[in-house]
Amino acid sequence: MSTLWKSRYAQRTLGIKSSAIRELLKVTQRPEIISFGGGLPAPDVFPVQRFEEACHKVLSEHGAQALQYGTTEGYQPLREMIAHNLARYGILSTADNVLITSGSQQALDLIGKLLINRGDRILVEAPTYLGALQAFSVYGAQYVPVPVDEDGLQTEQLDASLRAGPKFMYVLPNFQNPAGVTLSEGRRHQLILLADKYGIPIIEDDPYGQLRYEGDHIAPLVVLDRVNVRRDNGFTLGNVIYLSTFSKTLAPGIRLAWIVAPEDVISKLVQLKQAADLHTSTFNQYVAYEVARDGFLDQHVKLIRQVYRERRDTMLQALHDYFPHEVTWTHPKGGLFLWVTMPEGTDAQALLRAALAENVAFVTGDCFYPNNDQEGGRHMRLNFSHSQPEQIREGIRRLSVAVKMQLRTNHVIH
Amino acid sequence: MSTLWKSRYAQRTLGIKSSAIRELLKVTQRPEIISFGGGLPAPDVFPVQRFEEACHKVLSEHGAQALQYGTTEGYQPLREMIAHNLARYGILSTADNVLITSGSQQALDLIGKLLINRGDRILVEAPTYLGALQAFSVYGAQYVPVPVDEDGLQTEQLDASLRAGPKFMYVLPNFQNPAGVTLSEGRRHQLILLADKYGIPIIEDDPYGQLRYEGDHIAPLVVLDRVNVRRDNGFTLGNVIYLSTFSKTLAPGIRLAWIVAPEDVISKLVQLKQAADLHTSTFNQYVAYEVARDGFLDQHVKLIRQVYRERRDTMLQALHDYFPHEVTWTHPKGGLFLWVTMPEGTDAQALLRAALAENVAFVTGDCFYPNNDQEGGRHMRLNFSHSQPEQIREGIRRLSVAVKMQLRTNHVIH
Repeated sequence: MSTLWKSRYAQRTLGIKSSAIRELLKVTQRPEIISFGGGLPAPDVFPVQRFEEACHKVLSEHGAQALQYGTTEGYQPLREMIAHNLARYGILSTADNVLITSGSQQALDLIGKLLINRGDRILVEAPTYLGALQAFSVYGAQYVPVPVDEDGLQTEQLDASLRAGPKFMYVLPNFQNPAGVTLSEGRRHQLILLADKYGIPIIEDDPYGQLRYEGDHIAPLVVLDRVNVRRDNGFTLGNVIYLSTFSKTLAPGIRLAWIVAPEDVISKLVQLKQAADLHTSTFNQYVAYEVARDGFLDQHVKLIRQVYRERRDTMLQALHDYFPHEVTWTHPKGGLFLWVTMPEGTDAQALLRAALAENVAFVTGDCFYPNNDQEGGRHMRLNFSHSQPEQIREGIRRLSVAVKMQLRTNHVIH
Repeated sequence: MSTLWKSRYAQRTLGIKSSAIRELLKVTQRPEIISFGGGLPAPDVFPVQRFEEACHKVLSEHGAQALQYGTTEGYQPLREMIAHNLARYGILSTADNVLITSGSQQALDLIGKLLINRGDRILVEAPTYLGALQAFSVYGAQYVPVPVDEDGLQTEQLDASLRAGPKFMYVLPNFQNPAGVTLSEGRRHQLILLADKYGIPIIEDDPYGQLRYEGDHIAPLVVLDRVNVRRDNGFTLGNVIYLSTFSKTLAPGIRLAWIVAPEDVISKLVQLKQAADLHTSTFNQYVAYEVARDGFLDQHVKLIRQVYRERRDTMLQALHDYFPHEVTWTHPKGGLFLWVTMPEGTDAQALLRAALAENVAFVTGDCFYPNNDQEGGRHMRLNFSHSQPEQIREGIRRLSVAVKMQLRTNHVIH
């Protein structure tokens, strides 16, 4: 019968390959492996006790409603809380601009569904978030990659790419996954001006924005868009759709994120979400609201920043201490990842095999480039949020053994 | 800016209209309304206390894992429990045949994504589940509707429709939503033979199968398919994909359902689910497992059957007592709905307005027909699970006032 099924598959399955990261994660379940591979938050900072109190409160006070079907838009008090919290960053929205999604991955899927026809070109950073490429590829997206450097997307290279008429730009301005770089303030202004000039909307994905460990907050694109492009009153937003999530600040296992967009865009997304999963878990929305309220979220984010800053610093120090000088890496001001660049000609796949032999794992850079870009082959993405500092130091030491061996094989070190 | 967004929408948004049911549900929030409109389980049977114990146990024993990212396939013990429970109905599967989804609506979305290219014809019952039409329409499905009667899909009318080469058949064999009818055993065998003859797969949607109030269990299509079509050993399934859910037996607010399919189909669906929402809430899967285990689910389903059987009987008795003899209705042997047929020429929309004036609500039949079929115009779907028996009796009395008025307007009653 499997032949029968295969003959039935729609065209859109052809573009999807099984995720390299997913396969890697299976290997790294082995306890002796120190993994910098996943994008996992540290489980030791999950507010388990607060979740338990919230579950108790929700079930004893709202049991029947919290376990019942809910509206597609999401739990109203949670949407209001999110709109309220966004205001501190200058994002002026109401609950009507907020759609609760089943994780940011669903936000990317719904946006792909809303906007992408087969063959449409999407402008992305190179490298960019693998999950976005997976979500958009289902709808037949083609990609226009534009390189990033330490200041994020290289906006001075954008003009030609925008003239090619992409359907939208997908950008991670803060502590980007995978490269850990942040789009500078100057480039943000430039990006907004270019988006306006060419009439190309922006999807601003900001899962890590609150996890800044140094430097000053930079206004998000959705705010700069308001300043530059729109001058009318009210809360109708403009040219930017903004995404964020509780996955990195509360816990990813509750699958709660949100889209902020103009009301007419939200209303289209609501129709698509209704057809996709009716609504996000009512229970989880009630619980997250109870967990986050009364200032807990802010206080908890401070704790996470402290823990992750220490881990980032430990990794940077260990890289400095153990890695050969031919290798460079980014200095992320926040987030979960840093990005290592090996000398040209390095084979990251061979390096990964050598690293796994040393019981340490990472994700090879090629996963984060669309169009099988060769550039990815000499990069590693390293996650610093998930492991304890002593593991991080030991893991980088092990990785340095594999790196040196690999460089020697390539005759880069003589 | 909204013009900019509108000009960007992909082709696939054109087919979607805002759900009539969703709009209706907003009206029926008014407390004076008795609503037979939604498809809501009774909140008074939600096992709130058991959920609270389960949340406590999960967070104290597995806090870190339950709040972390999980695998796309789902929580392994839950998949094993589902495969184990399916075996009593003769569905021989392993956890590898089971994919956990974010409600059955996501199962329908993933199946649409996997199988439907724009313009593909899907064979559906007329009437059929509105949510399936919404999910499939996103991918550009066209429909081949085949009418149902008290014995379900009229399989003797299938030959011509199957020769038209539909991509698959979508069937709800037990206590169908909206008509409440059940596919007879003879027709199930006939359906499987026809599916085999024409090489057309079946999606068997079975959200209500456990909620039977009278008569004997009838083997699901996925089991008959095994008997008729496949005789080899092992757990590879055949021509039928089977869907079910916890929404009607535990609670819909946790958004947990599952797909049972051959392993190679599951592996494709896993890739699509990964791109759609990474995975279903880890926390909810742990909690549902703890709620359901040790025989609780079976015991709880017995309670639900008892409560819903009484409500169904109350509605049937009230219809008998209050409704004019020109009107007929189905006698559902299980599930949540019954289906009322008015004399030809009745305008169900006008009837709905009259009913709302009497403070009672239902869903008009036209919502459940693809292709804007005129046939739907004289039907009502009535839900009997959500209201208390005394409300059901009063609601049917109110509805009978509107019905009689409407029949008089149409000169059906003189």
